[in-house]
Amino acid sequence: MSLSRRKFLRNTTFNAAALASIPAIVSSCISSEEKKAHTFNPGDIILFQGDSITDAGREKERELPNNSSSFGPGYAFIAASGLLNSNPEEGLIIYNRGISGNKVFQLAERWEKDCLDLKPNVLSILIGVNDYWHTRKHGYEGTVETFENDLRALLKRTKKGLPGIRLVICQPFILTNTDGVDETWVEPFKAYQDVVAKIATEFDAVWVPFQEAFNEAVKYAPEKYWTIDGVHPSMAGCQLMAQAWLKAVVG
Amino acid sequence: MSLSRRKFLRNTTFNAAALASIPAIVSSCISSEEKKAHTFNPGDIILFQGDSITDAGREKERELPNNSSSFGPGYAFIAASGLLNSNPEEGLIIYNRGISGNKVFQLAERWEKDCLDLKPNVLSILIGVNDYWHTRKHGYEGTVETFENDLRALLKRTKKGLPGIRLVICQPFILTNTDGVDETWVEPFKAYQDVVAKIATEFDAVWVPFQEAFNEAVKYAPEKYWTIDGVHPSMAGCQLMAQAWLKAVVG
Repeated sequence: MSLSRRKFLRNTTFNAAALASIPAIVSSCISSEEKKAHTFNPGDIILFQGDSITDAGREKERELPNNSSSFGPGYAFIAASGLLNSNPEEGLIIYNRGISGNKVFQLAERWEKDCLDLKPNVLSILIGVNDYWHTRKHGYEGTVETFENDLRALLKRTKKGLPGIRLVICQPFILTNTDGVDETWVEPFKAYQDVVAKIATEFDAVWVPFQEAFNEAVKYAPEKYWTIDGVHPSMAGCQLMAQAWLKAVVG
Repeated sequence: MSLSRRKFLRNTTFNAAALASIPAIVSSCISSEEKKAHTFNPGDIILFQGDSITDAGREKERELPNNSSSFGPGYAFIAASGLLNSNPEEGLIIYNRGISGNKVFQLAERWEKDCLDLKPNVLSILIGVNDYWHTRKHGYEGTVETFENDLRALLKRTKKGLPGIRLVICQPFILTNTDGVDETWVEPFKAYQDVVAKIATEFDAVWVPFQEAFNEAVKYAPEKYWTIDGVHPSMAGCQLMAQAWLKAVVG
């Protein structure tokens, strides 16, 4: 660690009023003892992948790293901005390549261009809600087995193409009592969440428990405060997700 | 303070690794003893106003409060998301109405619709860089005296229309050694910064010292890390600004 990095870390007394919920909500579901991917090396390339929650309306013409417009206003923007701000000497290169509506097989279709070609050192992936949701609303015929097979194949392909990659696997989540999601989602969607958790363990990934973070958050304000429709996070939800992500990945 | 709010604040031990720069950079230029506007009341309306730095490419069709797209990926999105996340029981209503390219007189032209009609309890304003910049690049003929008179008039009008309003005045900033800004900006722009500081004192506003935050940040990485062109912040810069804003306003 360089001298100035030590200076950076020295004064860690923190008036937590402004960000009071970080420790309360996030610490309640993410242990500091969890395995972390926080050994960022200088010049590391970090890639956020996923569906609309990651996409966040980003501009897709230039797709620049470390660029606000290319991130869009979502959790990935806040988390990546936090990483960049906290690690100014590391020269991190961070991409967002989430695309709205994506299911796992659609990630696979664009994986060469939107993952392997970027040669990420760290891949963060949040996927799965559309794999279930679209069976309800768009007549999508994939099953939870399709999802499991597709996700495992995608990650095997990733590890084969980029053997040293560190994986961050995010728990897909829903919030009931919202305009888009009711109790009938919970049991079938749990099967998808279980698949992601199992695969995260198989691939020795850092695990980001978004569902648990939201479950804790709704003790303080109703579901509609944290999400727009039960699937997409509100601004408060984006901040919650970013904090959970940083806590899980960096500690 | 409600019971659950106390629960929220109880566990304030914070592993600062993820956000190490908050205390180091921001605390070096913002004292915890400064007067704060952090007496947010339930249902308070908070308005972010300014130019392109605040605008951040937000969508301007709906202009919803507490909405990611209506905020765009900038410092206001991160700061507002932080406030919403940390105060889930307060029902805060937060707007972004920054517009790219604005100088003070252009804020004045849309002030009825974009400030007074919204009836904010807290107004945060970041303006001034275009009042100087456009004298260099667009032949704008306003002087620093024009700027001072216009800004004072705007805030008098605001206080008259909304007597109880609490003001947060942000220091406009530049970063030299960048593609857009060189040393010849420093002295003339300082006159604009001095005006804003003087007016912040006159109006008993909370002061957000963005220039000092960036001056501290460039000890850790070059100017181009924190800004795109010397005027607009990078993602790291957006996070730095949000943290400075929260530290100044909330503590």
